[in-house]
Amino acid sequence: MALRDTGIGTSLDLTADVVGLARALVDVHSVSHGEEALADAVEQALRGCGHLEVIRRGNTVVARTDLGRSERVVLAGHLDTVPVNGNFPGRFDEEAGVLHGLGSVDMKGGDAVILHLAATMPAPTRDVTYVLYDAEEVAEEHNGLRHLAASDPDLLAADFAVLMEPSNAGVEAGCQGTLRVEVRTAGERAHSARSWRGSNAIHAASEILNRLAAYEPRKPVIDGLEYHEGLNAVRISGGVAGNVVPDECVVEVNHRFAPDRSTDEAEAFVRDFFAGYDCTLTDLAPGALPGLDRPAAKEFVEATGGQVAPKFGWTDVSRFSALGVPAVNYGPGDPLLAHKADERVDVEEIRTCERVLRAWLSA
Amino acid sequence: MALRDTGIGTSLDLTADVVGLARALVDVHSVSHGEEALADAVEQALRGCGHLEVIRRGNTVVARTDLGRSERVVLAGHLDTVPVNGNFPGRFDEEAGVLHGLGSVDMKGGDAVILHLAATMPAPTRDVTYVLYDAEEVAEEHNGLRHLAASDPDLLAADFAVLMEPSNAGVEAGCQGTLRVEVRTAGERAHSARSWRGSNAIHAASEILNRLAAYEPRKPVIDGLEYHEGLNAVRISGGVAGNVVPDECVVEVNHRFAPDRSTDEAEAFVRDFFAGYDCTLTDLAPGALPGLDRPAAKEFVEATGGQVAPKFGWTDVSRFSALGVPAVNYGPGDPLLAHKADERVDVEEIRTCERVLRAWLSA
Repeated sequence: MALRDTGIGTSLDLTADVVGLARALVDVHSVSHGEEALADAVEQALRGCGHLEVIRRGNTVVARTDLGRSERVVLAGHLDTVPVNGNFPGRFDEEAGVLHGLGSVDMKGGDAVILHLAATMPAPTRDVTYVLYDAEEVAEEHNGLRHLAASDPDLLAADFAVLMEPSNAGVEAGCQGTLRVEVRTAGERAHSARSWRGSNAIHAASEILNRLAAYEPRKPVIDGLEYHEGLNAVRISGGVAGNVVPDECVVEVNHRFAPDRSTDEAEAFVRDFFAGYDCTLTDLAPGALPGLDRPAAKEFVEATGGQVAPKFGWTDVSRFSALGVPAVNYGPGDPLLAHKADERVDVEEIRTCERVLRAWLSA
Repeated sequence: MALRDTGIGTSLDLTADVVGLARALVDVHSVSHGEEALADAVEQALRGCGHLEVIRRGNTVVARTDLGRSERVVLAGHLDTVPVNGNFPGRFDEEAGVLHGLGSVDMKGGDAVILHLAATMPAPTRDVTYVLYDAEEVAEEHNGLRHLAASDPDLLAADFAVLMEPSNAGVEAGCQGTLRVEVRTAGERAHSARSWRGSNAIHAASEILNRLAAYEPRKPVIDGLEYHEGLNAVRISGGVAGNVVPDECVVEVNHRFAPDRSTDEAEAFVRDFFAGYDCTLTDLAPGALPGLDRPAAKEFVEATGGQVAPKFGWTDVSRFSALGVPAVNYGPGDPLLAHKADERVDVEEIRTCERVLRAWLSA
């Protein structure tokens, strides 16, 4: 174990073994808004590395090499986890090679890779900015990477970024955008015993659901990757009382759109799709193009074996994209296990990611 | 005013003036489950009438003549009101002849008619059972008339009953039945970014709403009265989170059916209507046939002027019907004002009802 409780905080050994480091990170409680102890330990350990410049902003910690290389890349991971769900602290099944516990897959396995590389690569062939940030698992407004982009945009300037969200140690490029609207029907209340005096807003929503049921998704191919859009009712509500014809029905719809469409284009598509209905935009985040044409990106993809999949879920990759930094997801563990009580990671994937990134940063 | 606070409870003067009595009743607080003070006052006042036998059950008070007449009729009203809504105590606009306040229309105007007739008609031409009951405005299980029918069915035995719910002083005969079902669709959850891996239960509800929107109501004519059925979604709900394809959608549907259909027939109709969907019955109450063929009913309708309208809303009329007692709604006030903050009754309608019933019980 790489964790030692010194009595004045947790001390992390970044250099010994990447899997031991992942175990240590899992055992430091860091549910969103409670990342301070872990951020302190990370900062303290990184300050012990003479080849790094370390900057602290809130509970976000940045460490950088400054070797004057021709390219700079970012390796980023969030420190926080979703709430404990009977899975803290972690448990290491040595025989199976599986690390169980909160954050094991999302994303302390990835954080361990970042920190181990930071500590053990004094002279990478590309300058590297290592970013460990807070509050990714909660509302957008708290996101540590967002705050860093606002306060210190220079710290995120780079030619390429790797966000170490779990991706089964495969490269997921780009990111679909997401948008939510509330589509409303109006009616007129009446006692249900005299329903013909009113107008039923729930019945009026039938056409909205008909359009959704008939929706055919676009599947554009971008940089060789096929994206698959989606348009789904994620919530429906309406009704006043058991004996009242309802005067309003609201269908909340989530649109996931491929990164060849701007947010404006996606909004226009949805408004046109629901033409004739009151449509209120409640959430909107852009997608990110794969951006695989830059040298650092190409060489990274080659180092991982050349396979790239499109990313469907929205991640902070798109935040880098908005800053003009092409980014990919690449990290150990199955993303479908994230936020589950039985969250776990195959430690071989942690070692694979560490090996691949080390090779890429040594080339 | 017919109300005197004696310091040991409220004393009601039943004989002086029916409108004064209505004003007094409105000013005794009797929100459902808080009817005791009013039931006490009613019991005490009725016990002062030597020609009546008085029975008390909980907060329900029954008074009867026992003159050996060939027919017996029931006049019934509930004592409780919905909660106070800035409209207690009442206010009498003498110039306009309008009594404002909680319970003025639902249904202390009708109660005043019952109590005034009870006190001032020592020898009606039909034996009369006067019933003032509690807890009509709350869940069915509390209904005082229901409890009386269970504990003392003989007290409700009669040839005809008049329920003095507001009906604009017109006769409303029969009563539609009411039934509720929950119609469910099932799907499969998935992250909305990979929606094709799931199955959207809200989209699947489109066909349920299509059927409802296309529903054509029956309008059967019974005893010369046209009933108008209804089938309405009164609530819809579905959704897990803003980024999850939902696996369930529930549409709550209220069916109002004409009294020529039994509850079994109505249920079969609804199940057939939603064939192919999971359909759970949650509420079922029978209708009541108009029952205008009995002599007491015919003469009552003649006394009111001969006009009869069908009753659409479900009322305790159907409870009498289930006991084999034909019943009608007939009472002062506009039912559309019931349960409103600006509840009010034209006092001329109170006088009209009192006059009509007196003539009928004197014929």
